[in-house]
Amino acid sequence: MVLWAMVRVSESRLLGNIEALAQIGAIGGGGNARLALTDEDKAGRDLVVGWMKELRLDVRIDAIGNVIGLRAGRENLPPVMTGSHIDTVRTGGRYDGNYGVLAGLEIVRALNEAKVTTRRPIAVAFFTNEEGARFQPDMMGSLVYCGGIGLNEAYAAADKDGRSVGDELRRIGYLGAAKPGAIRPRAFVELHIEQGPILDEEKVRIGVVESVQGISWTEYTVSGVSNHAGTTPMRLRRDAGYLAASVNLFVRKLAWEMGGDQVATVGALQLRPNLINVVPNSCVFTVDLRNTDEAKLKDAEARVAAHVAEIARAERLDVEAKVLARFEPVIFDGGLVDRVEHHARALGLSTRRMPSGAGHDAQMMQRICPTAMIFVPSVAGLSHNVKEHTEAADLAAGAQVLMNLVLELADR
Amino acid sequence: MVLWAMVRVSESRLLGNIEALAQIGAIGGGGNARLALTDEDKAGRDLVVGWMKELRLDVRIDAIGNVIGLRAGRENLPPVMTGSHIDTVRTGGRYDGNYGVLAGLEIVRALNEAKVTTRRPIAVAFFTNEEGARFQPDMMGSLVYCGGIGLNEAYAAADKDGRSVGDELRRIGYLGAAKPGAIRPRAFVELHIEQGPILDEEKVRIGVVESVQGISWTEYTVSGVSNHAGTTPMRLRRDAGYLAASVNLFVRKLAWEMGGDQVATVGALQLRPNLINVVPNSCVFTVDLRNTDEAKLKDAEARVAAHVAEIARAERLDVEAKVLARFEPVIFDGGLVDRVEHHARALGLSTRRMPSGAGHDAQMMQRICPTAMIFVPSVAGLSHNVKEHTEAADLAAGAQVLMNLVLELADR
Repeated sequence: MVLWAMVRVSESRLLGNIEALAQIGAIGGGGNARLALTDEDKAGRDLVVGWMKELRLDVRIDAIGNVIGLRAGRENLPPVMTGSHIDTVRTGGRYDGNYGVLAGLEIVRALNEAKVTTRRPIAVAFFTNEEGARFQPDMMGSLVYCGGIGLNEAYAAADKDGRSVGDELRRIGYLGAAKPGAIRPRAFVELHIEQGPILDEEKVRIGVVESVQGISWTEYTVSGVSNHAGTTPMRLRRDAGYLAASVNLFVRKLAWEMGGDQVATVGALQLRPNLINVVPNSCVFTVDLRNTDEAKLKDAEARVAAHVAEIARAERLDVEAKVLARFEPVIFDGGLVDRVEHHARALGLSTRRMPSGAGHDAQMMQRICPTAMIFVPSVAGLSHNVKEHTEAADLAAGAQVLMNLVLELADR
Repeated sequence: MVLWAMVRVSESRLLGNIEALAQIGAIGGGGNARLALTDEDKAGRDLVVGWMKELRLDVRIDAIGNVIGLRAGRENLPPVMTGSHIDTVRTGGRYDGNYGVLAGLEIVRALNEAKVTTRRPIAVAFFTNEEGARFQPDMMGSLVYCGGIGLNEAYAAADKDGRSVGDELRRIGYLGAAKPGAIRPRAFVELHIEQGPILDEEKVRIGVVESVQGISWTEYTVSGVSNHAGTTPMRLRRDAGYLAASVNLFVRKLAWEMGGDQVATVGALQLRPNLINVVPNSCVFTVDLRNTDEAKLKDAEARVAAHVAEIARAERLDVEAKVLARFEPVIFDGGLVDRVEHHARALGLSTRRMPSGAGHDAQMMQRICPTAMIFVPSVAGLSHNVKEHTEAADLAAGAQVLMNLVLELADR
């Protein structure tokens, strides 16, 4: 008989802890505002660290403020790690990040109650400033953990009021002594809400996350000529807004043609002079392209650039393109992804393989150890929104998949 | 021998007066700010009225502040009227409106010098608040003159600080005793800069204006669903910005297909939340359609509305359409238009028949008497801009065409 099949997570305990953490930095409508390294973040950290200590975890705080609670195994081997983040955006929900951390603690609690000791240690972590809503870059704690940027670079990051990560870490008492990345896990598994509509729409219980989409953000600044909308014949126009409109339709068509995971968005746009009866002489707009396949993402970028050049030539416009962000796709560990799917199905839960459209700490951890993610449905796909919601049964199901996978990995 | 061929306007006097008026409310770059019924407008009016009196015109000020200077004829018949306006937009040029009024005075001056008395009286008018930059509606003085709106409605129009037309007319001393429209002209001819690029581009000296385009302004408010640009598949999007982009391309194509005078512009657009990585849930944008043919303009409106409905259905968007302005096209008097062309050609000037894309006092006057307009080139089509410019030779040529036409009409 397999041990891991016998330890059950408690839905009510998990929900109770999510509710308790959501009281800190609570805002109207059930949402949360615990921006990284604020007093609210400190209060949330203190609560979770208190729970870690109640669960007799060995709490390590590293020099970027990442917190890792270790549960000893029978052998002194690299741990199986799970976790996520507990910082939020300014109008965040209560599940984004928090769910993965508190489900990790629920696993420990259930194992403690069942008096189960695993072969490998189990680690539950929360990483500093995943959201990037106050300090950039986002996913900062896991990025430092994996050596993606140095500590000094991270410390120097400042918010809009000029306060730095280093100063704020010290102020709230979370500038720890441990070296980031000192604990190199055997594997990392992150449980998270989908933050998108697919699972909810398709009534699938568990998302088996294979990858994180690559991201390409470009801002275009288009210069044409401002003219009277009544007196300027169509053939003489140099309409900066027309290029943005053409790109909007082009990327929609491109995404449909490429299919798969390709998405494309014109999310921000500003016309000048922005008057009903004046042909716009200036348009600043953005294009967000994402794909899980780097070659396809590059192809999409090239096709958009060619379209921009073609319309600019035809309309006699000047265009400047500025890359605002560019991340290559991340592919999770194939073996581990298979085990996510296996455990979900063994529990009788419907599954769907999918990429993550959003960034997560897991994509950084994949650089240093086999990594995978488990998604549960977000009702109506809402996230970064006080209305963010996941059904209790789905929260419990995701936590049980995580439990079973962690137990398997910890006994390997 | 025909009398009118002998009286020449003076280019230097005309330019000198344009320069003198441009000193009042001068702004940087050679432009003017004389918003209707401000102190600057009063100073401009006082200067022009002073010139009228020097020219021994009988100055009448009516109850909406329109000023008419009458030069007696041999017979007491309805006068031939010319004129325009002397108010400007906030960053206006020195020619828009002013040119037509001062060319009218130059005609009188030349006739006085030549001691020519015409059969009919000649009237030179400037109308109140043509621009509509401070008080709406625009073309207010000529609209009241023609009975389009009543005096009380016009008096009640207030600027953004709550000051009314009635109070401001009284304050600057231009609330006159005459009944607007009491003088019903035999004909009205307005000389104006084109404010568009056609004459300049085609190197044509005189625009023979046959009509004023009808205008249709609609503001669309589009409601979709805001979603994460990374996690939301294309098929699930309800992108408010996409509809605006599609309409932008549709109206461009529509204008090309309809050809002729049809123009179409998406000039103003605001996305919400207007973030690079969020599918816009709201878009407010405008469509400006113009045509000289009312049936074609209606057809264009219907086709745009159908396209909006089609995209809204496909993208599952809610759309509200609000008509911001709607004016039917105005067709000028055919016989008078022919005479504009005749006199320009007789002077050896190249001509082009054309519509006016912008609104003018002449379109109101056409309601009460045979009316036509004469255009001269605007360099690069610039207007409502401090860089507005017309070459001196073109200013003189337009004034001479006006002179010859007015003399013909005044002796009929």
